[in-house]
Amino acid sequence: MNIAQRDRDLGTAYALREPATRTELTSVARGTPMGELMRRYWHPVGLATDATDIPRKVRALGEDLILFRDRHDRIGLLHARCCHRGTTLYYGKVEEDGIRCCYHGWKFDTEGNCLEQPCEPDGGVFKAKVRQPWYPVEERYGLIFAYMGPVDKKPVLPGYDCLETMDEDEFVEADDSSIGGGGPAVIPCNWLQHFENVVDPYHVPVLHGSFSGPQFSNMMASMPEVKFEMSPRGVTVRSIRHQDDGKIFYRVTEAALPTLRVVPNPRVAQFARVESIGWTLPIDDTSFRIYVAGRVRNAGDIGRMRSKFNGKFWWDMTEAEHQQFPGDYEAQVGQGAVTIHSEEHFGQSDRGIVMIRRLLKEQLEALAAGRDPIGVSFDPKAPPVQFEAGNFIREA
Amino acid sequence: MNIAQRDRDLGTAYALREPATRTELTSVARGTPMGELMRRYWHPVGLATDATDIPRKVRALGEDLILFRDRHDRIGLLHARCCHRGTTLYYGKVEEDGIRCCYHGWKFDTEGNCLEQPCEPDGGVFKAKVRQPWYPVEERYGLIFAYMGPVDKKPVLPGYDCLETMDEDEFVEADDSSIGGGGPAVIPCNWLQHFENVVDPYHVPVLHGSFSGPQFSNMMASMPEVKFEMSPRGVTVRSIRHQDDGKIFYRVTEAALPTLRVVPNPRVAQFARVESIGWTLPIDDTSFRIYVAGRVRNAGDIGRMRSKFNGKFWWDMTEAEHQQFPGDYEAQVGQGAVTIHSEEHFGQSDRGIVMIRRLLKEQLEALAAGRDPIGVSFDPKAPPVQFEAGNFIREA
Amino acid sequence: MNIAQRDRDLGTAYALREPATRTELTSVARGTPMGELMRRYWHPVGLATDATDIPRKVRALGEDLILFRDRHDRIGLLHARCCHRGTTLYYGKVEEDGIRCCYHGWKFDTEGNCLEQPCEPDGGVFKAKVRQPWYPVEERYGLIFAYMGPVDKKPVLPGYDCLETMDEDEFVEADDSSIGGGGPAVIPCNWLQHFENVVDPYHVPVLHGSFSGPQFSNMMASMPEVKFEMSPRGVTVRSIRHQDDGKIFYRVTEAALPTLRVVPNPRVAQFARVESIGWTLPIDDTSFRIYVAGRVRNAGDIGRMRSKFNGKFWWDMTEAEHQQFPGDYEAQVGQGAVTIHSEEHFGQSDRGIVMIRRLLKEQLEALAAGRDPIGVSFDPKAPPVQFEAGNFIREA
Repeated sequence: MNIAQRDRDLGTAYALREPATRTELTSVARGTPMGELMRRYWHPVGLATDATDIPRKVRALGEDLILFRDRHDRIGLLHARCCHRGTTLYYGKVEEDGIRCCYHGWKFDTEGNCLEQPCEPDGGVFKAKVRQPWYPVEERYGLIFAYMGPVDKKPVLPGYDCLETMDEDEFVEADDSSIGGGGPAVIPCNWLQHFENVVDPYHVPVLHGSFSGPQFSNMMASMPEVKFEMSPRGVTVRSIRHQDDGKIFYRVTEAALPTLRVVPNPRVAQFARVESIGWTLPIDDTSFRIYVAGRVRNAGDIGRMRSKFNGKFWWDMTEAEHQQFPGDYEAQVGQGAVTIHSEEHFGQSDRGIVMIRRLLKEQLEALAAGRDPIGVSFDPKAPPVQFEAGNFIREA
Repeated sequence: MNIAQRDRDLGTAYALREPATRTELTSVARGTPMGELMRRYWHPVGLATDATDIPRKVRALGEDLILFRDRHDRIGLLHARCCHRGTTLYYGKVEEDGIRCCYHGWKFDTEGNCLEQPCEPDGGVFKAKVRQPWYPVEERYGLIFAYMGPVDKKPVLPGYDCLETMDEDEFVEADDSSIGGGGPAVIPCNWLQHFENVVDPYHVPVLHGSFSGPQFSNMMASMPEVKFEMSPRGVTVRSIRHQDDGKIFYRVTEAALPTLRVVPNPRVAQFARVESIGWTLPIDDTSFRIYVAGRVRNAGDIGRMRSKFNGKFWWDMTEAEHQQFPGDYEAQVGQGAVTIHSEEHFGQSDRGIVMIRRLLKEQLEALAAGRDPIGVSFDPKAPPVQFEAGNFIREA
Repeated sequence: MNIAQRDRDLGTAYALREPATRTELTSVARGTPMGELMRRYWHPVGLATDATDIPRKVRALGEDLILFRDRHDRIGLLHARCCHRGTTLYYGKVEEDGIRCCYHGWKFDTEGNCLEQPCEPDGGVFKAKVRQPWYPVEERYGLIFAYMGPVDKKPVLPGYDCLETMDEDEFVEADDSSIGGGGPAVIPCNWLQHFENVVDPYHVPVLHGSFSGPQFSNMMASMPEVKFEMSPRGVTVRSIRHQDDGKIFYRVTEAALPTLRVVPNPRVAQFARVESIGWTLPIDDTSFRIYVAGRVRNAGDIGRMRSKFNGKFWWDMTEAEHQQFPGDYEAQVGQGAVTIHSEEHFGQSDRGIVMIRRLLKEQLEALAAGRDPIGVSFDPKAPPVQFEAGNFIREA
């Protein structure tokens, strides 16, 4: 194959170079650069209510795990394959102090300690020598967070001011339906395609405005002036829109490592600091889901933030409607299971994307050099994280 | 593994050698030998009516493309992934002079020129520097033809006499339902398995005759005398059958590069030159579809040529009926997604297959030597291509 | 990736080593160690009634074959792809003395000899030079057995005393529905996961007893004393359970190479020698099925041995019921398509598994050294194989 200059000049698809993906940024498998970076942070892996006495399948960062809660209210997140002969603990039974494998009855507590081996002489005299692979978890904001990395690097699970400081009638609600993803709960493309969207305010007036009709507030429909800035945890995006009344609509969005969407309500129901945080959990390299925790006044408020298109939920739309009223799901899944970076062409409006990729690359270098990535804290007394995000109105 | 001579002598399946496929003949991906040969010719990629203001997915030679028609009646065939951030243009909107990507609104004309970048300062001062990968197309015979190869080698889109010279009440109709494929519109096996079938007249009295009942005319049911000959564009097959009335039924079929089926009506409604041409479009290495253009007197005549089996359309048959009344679909898909050439055993009756493979191999060698393959013309004034194909009756 | 000792000490899933499977034990493809060992034995590939004048697809040891019976009652088991041009003989027609390919009508007898080539001059003067790859078969016990290995190593098809010596009102019945597999006829995991289960008596009181409710007899619900011993054909498992009445329930189960389950009725309808044999046919590396032949008094007795769970057949259960009442299917498919041996931890109760793997390894070594594996006989006058298996009652 011999692509001539004239093919390049004409820009035909015949002149396309070999497609290439920056997998060091996209792949989350254990042992890969980004997989290791991801494993230096806590990730939500379920709603608090997902952990019950019925074992539940969880897939996170490409690993198959089983989630349960014993009768002492301890939550277990175990490697799915029993360390004895490999049968999934999904078919196990949860007992008072652990989960028992269906095949030969080995019982494990929530930290993987083997409590019983009923088929072994004397109940298993060597059972202390085996341990079911497990991960530490913590429950907060209605979510279960897991730490899947090296134990010596385990940071403190961060608290967030926007979920801690609230009005008297407010409370925190959690949601696992991928609010903000524009489609179903599990979205079949790489997590980074969505995460980059957080620092891309320019698509809003196009995709969510002129293109599909104003999916959000009319206030969002005009092209903003945008300033991007590095923050202690990621990238901050400040969008300014001049209002007809002479005031300024000032909107701040943040992307924070590892995968946090700190995005004020795009419907701009009020002018206030951000009311929720979304975590873009990479299920594996080609799918993700979003967990959200937010301050609400009524149960179900988070779910009611879900976008409609042409008056319908995503799953009720016809193929023709998806084509006519595309949203974030179509735009990001439409980039492919994992996008092809070699085909991209950036403009001024892609500065946020460039910054987030550079930031991720710097963190990979930090890890390679033995340093900690940004945003992790080992201080249990650290105050809750403050975000600047919000919708604000200002005098011009 | 140690296969003994006795295993070979007995011919058990244990003695089978490692399966091998001549992928240099079958694979159509860009950069492969056959992929490059294919890209020296025009291929139909849709009906003229497929190009509208609704973007349409096209897959050809393993490439994903988007077909549309702007308001100036110009047809665009663009690389599916937007050159900005990779979102498929399937979700784009067709405007007066181009198609606009749903994500950030970049607009491209039918030759991939970037007309607008609404999120960029001043509408994108560098927009002339990017170009959406595209392919040239031409509309003819109710079909849209694309040239997907190097621009310096672009031949003239050929005209065909059998579609140009016609009676007063005749007109040309196009069909995309894979008439002649014996099954559904998309056929899940390599294109070459079908293309070889064109130069295989011997299977007709077996597969379409004694085996499944006479699917075509009774005239086709007897074993012909056959002469194979190289033509300027491929292989010509002349079949002679002596009739009961002492006359001779003389049938000429042609396979022409790249993928043309020049096959007279097997139902032999009349004795005349061929009335249609079929193009076997490789969708990718493991599926193909057939576009047909033909002279007709009534709209829908092409579609009415579709074979029935046991009185039913292919898609209405039960599994038992497919087994009892197999046709071209079963015979060719039954060779596997891509056939295994190392297991073949040729006879005298396979001379056409041998010739077409040799012809293809010679074209690959021509390309490697910097020559043009047969059948391409760079003369815009070249007269329409004449085929010899037809059903004829002759005195003995 | 740098797993620290503390991660290993804590046993988190982060410390898991790279997963590894002993494919030399699991893979059955031709040319692999286990594939070659398997090919030194006869395997059932269908019920006797499966071989008719309608060609039938068979997949065994990863090979696609076509089974049929000609009008002289000869059974053919041919390589699925016709040796002419590769079309599957599934669409062929069975004639008096063979099967004819649908595409060009080549006809083969049950030993692959080519009888006709109707498209060739004079019916194919070279037809003796080609042979459709085939395998020798024998019909016995209502099953069709195939020998898929090197012809010089073909052993005698063994007879089994438990299927030869019977009471006056008994007869042998065959079943292909994977009785004993705990699920559907085709079970989507590696055959060895099931075969190992035969020498694992300890799982019975757990999986089939306390866990899912007593799926079998109450007599099976208690933990047995077990002795494992090598036998001339595999591994013998002797389980002793002391009864309330002071007697001893003595149960002997055998696993015999290549894949035989010699398992007395787990419902213990009577105290007697084993009444059936099961063959665990590897369809390929990731699926298997079980053929059974057994002595019965009424047609359908074998099928009536099928387990129910919570009063339902496997296929009628909800997902929640599968989770609550798992059986062999869930335990073995739950190990994955092919289990990961590097994650296993064996105990005393896994001695049978250790023995069967060592036995298989020794046979691989025997083959590599040019010796025959255990259990094969080349003596056509060898008496039927005697198994010790059965449920017995003994005085203490």
